[in-house]
This record gives sequence, structure tokens and C-alpha cells, in this order.
Amino acid sequence: MEKKRTTIVLFSGDYDKAMAAYIIANGAAAYDHEVTIFHTFWGINVLRKQEPVVVKKGILEKLFAKMMPRGAEQLGLSNMHMAGMGPKMIKHVVTKHNALTLTQLIDMAQEQEVKIVTCTMTMDLLGLQQEELVDGIEYAGVAAYLADAEDGNVNLFI
Amino acid sequence: MEKKRTTIVLFSGDYDKAMAAYIIANGAAAYDHEVTIFHTFWGINVLRKQEPVVVKKGILEKLFAKMMPRGAEQLGLSNMHMAGMGPKMIKHVVTKHNALTLTQLIDMAQEQEVKIVTCTMTMDLLGLQQEELVDGIEYAGVAAYLADAEDGNVNLFI
Amino acid sequence: MEKKRTTIVLFSGDYDKAMAAYIIANGAAAYDHEVTIFHTFWGINVLRKQEPVVVKKGILEKLFAKMMPRGAEQLGLSNMHMAGMGPKMIKHVVTKHNALTLTQLIDMAQEQEVKIVTCTMTMDLLGLQQEELVDGIEYAGVAAYLADAEDGNVNLFI
Repeated sequence: MEKKRTTIVLFSGDYDKAMAAYIIANGAAAYDHEVTIFHTFWGINVLRKQEPVVVKKGILEKLFAKMMPRGAEQLGLSNMHMAGMGPKMIKHVVTKHNALTLTQLIDMAQEQEVKIVTCTMTMDLLGLQQEELVDGIEYAGVAAYLADAEDGNVNLFI
Repeated sequence: MEKKRTTIVLFSGDYDKAMAAYIIANGAAAYDHEVTIFHTFWGINVLRKQEPVVVKKGILEKLFAKMMPRGAEQLGLSNMHMAGMGPKMIKHVVTKHNALTLTQLIDMAQEQEVKIVTCTMTMDLLGLQQEELVDGIEYAGVAAYLADAEDGNVNLFI
Repeated sequence: MEKKRTTIVLFSGDYDKAMAAYIIANGAAAYDHEVTIFHTFWGINVLRKQEPVVVKKGILEKLFAKMMPRGAEQLGLSNMHMAGMGPKMIKHVVTKHNALTLTQLIDMAQEQEVKIVTCTMTMDLLGLQQEELVDGIEYAGVAAYLADAEDGNVNLFI
């Protein structure tokens, strides 16, 4: 019997939305789905290395690199009204309840062989290079995403 | 013949997004789909009772309860640029055109037997208790959502 | 063999989210999918004509018309944290990398016969009239969207 399939486009670079994406992805993988998370636009920031990486860049690309959050633990919240609450408060609650942080959720996804893909077009646009992103991820375009999604049972845009 | 199925993850706690979720859910139910709305993260605020409910809570949970909107009619708008417009203006337009308010849309969904589910993990994290939420809803985790979604014809994340 | 089908609800009126919607739509059309983009709520602003159109309106409808962006090139960004970056910076990068602007992506979608639909209920609510929107689009309600989506392989809410 063919495996069920879940694909998620992670467009958002918000901590809470990325958590939701990785919770659903890990759940689906535990259910024995083949799972793909396609990181595009701001969703790529989730995969940036926390430490600065020295690469050659133009002025505009340097500016982007500086303005955008470096990695999972630097992201903000999606919710305007809740922003007063802050990502720190959310992380505090997550830890208090022995739930997983975003970084731990990403590690678990990699252990469960969730396919973590970064959109090459976004990397071009924002001037990001592979050295700046975490290890163990794939690079592809929208065509590869669609090839996975058209056979998907659960397809979400987050 | 098997019934078609629609599932919606309602992550957002914004008035306009919750309206869109319930309009699609009611439409799908009218089309004889089996429909599930899985309320998670800020989407849970849509289901809070409007009047304050006295329950025992820790300090942090009390703070959350105070910061988050209590029920459908207290939610804000998703749109930064439109926030000047305000939920009041939207509700005014809805009433003027004899369209349904969010509260009415939720009532209609319950009459049409849309399965309204609240994410138990989020309730734990935010310290919400069942007494604080409206009646006639179900409580489940991401596994139950995925069980519905993997057979879904239309699956959306809102 | 029946054609595969992709449907997108474009709820958002943000430049970057509309870009993502039209990039996926164009990709799916190139893959020979039948594609529908259903513009609802703020997503309708993507389809407004850039020049002001004189139509008879009530005071509230005039106010909406004034507050909401007129067409693809006037939209803002989805990302609170990136809003300092501004749509201008994004468009600059898009042009620099010979990528397509939103207006060009919409033109390409029309050439590829993507079905671009505007939600009639939203038009009623916001007091928008057909003369105010770009040519070559269709007008329909949520029932028509669901009829397309229930046979869809890829269904997204953006």
C-alpha cells in the first residue's frame, strides 16, 4: 500500500506558526506519512544558523541578512495583539509544560526523516547562501514542491 | 457513497479569518461534507465564553487569560493596514448587508453538525479550562485532526 | 485522463502573500493543472484597478474604497517585523534578479488560463463594483469555490 503524504508550505517566519507547522509535520510522520516542509519567503529564516556566517555579499543582501532573524530561536510572534506577550513568554510556557521548543521540533522532524526543503528562488531574492542555513536540508523550487503536493493527502500553507 | 470531507485548522484568532473559516465550513456542510474545524493556538480564543469564568489558575495563566480576547465578538482584525478600520466597522457592514456575524456563523455551524474541536495541547500551554469555553465542542489533539484530514477532500490552514 | 486541479483561496491582501499565491498558481498551470484562485476579503484588493474609477457609492463604501489599496502595486507586506523593509525593497530585489513582479505574475496567470475569481459576498460587503476591478476575471460565491476544491489535488488558503 502506498504511503500517505503530507506537504506544508512554510511561508511565515513567525515562531508560533513555525511551531504549528512542525507539530503537524511530526504528527504526520509519526502516522507514517511521507512529509515535506517547503520553506519559502520568511519561512527560510527558521533555518538560518544562529551564529553569523561570513560570506561575500552585496550591500542589499547584507542589509537583508541583518534585518531578518537568524534562526528558530530569534523569531517573533504572528499575533499583533499577542506580541506584547512575546516569544519569551511562549517559550517559558513551552518549557514549563515539558513541550518541545521549535529547535527541538525541527530536530525531531529530521530524526523522523521529514523532508525539509528550502526554496531556491527565495534564496536568490534575499541573497542567502547554503552556508548560512542549518545542515541536512534540501534545496528545490516550486516545481518540486508541486510534484510532492499533487499526490498529497494533507496539503497546507502556513 | 462515502461523504466528502472538509477540515480546517483555525490557528488565527482574528475576527476576519475566523469569519472566513466558518463561512467555508458552513458552505461545505450545506454541500453535505463532513466538516471539522480544529481550533489551535490563538484560534481557541474564538471559543472562549464572553463572561469571565472563575477557575483556579497560576499567575502566568491568569495573565494569559487577561491578555487574550474573550470570545468571538472581542477579536481583532488580521490586517495591519486595515486595523484602522476596526472590527466594529466590519461588524457594522455585516449587519447592514444582512450577513451573519461570527457568533451567528458559529451557531449555524453547530446546527449543521460541524465538528468543532479544541486543541488540548494549546489548552494546556495557555492554561485554559473547559469551563471557560463555549458548550457543545470536542477536545482532541493533533493525531485526531490528522485522522480526519488524511481522508479530507478540502484541507485548509487558516 | 482527468486533469489535476489546484485551488487557492487568496484571503490576504499582502504583496508577498499574493506573490506566493500567483507563483504556485503559475507553477501548477505550467504542470497542466486546472487552477482557480478565489479572491476573498482583502485578497480582492489585488484585483482593483490602479486608477480611481467613478461609481455611485454610499459614504461607508467610499471610505472603504479610500482606505484599501488600489491594485497589486499598492499592497503592503505581511510581515510585521519586515515591514521596515517595505514593498519597495522587495520589488527592487525582484527586478534586480529578473524575477516577475506581482502584476506580471497576474498577467502570466491570465495567459495560462488560471481561473481568477472574485468573491461576490466580499464585493457586497465592501461595496466594490465590477468596474473597479481588472478585466478578465470571474465572479462567484463560496459554493463555486467548494465545487472546484472538492475535486482538488492541491487546495491552499493564503
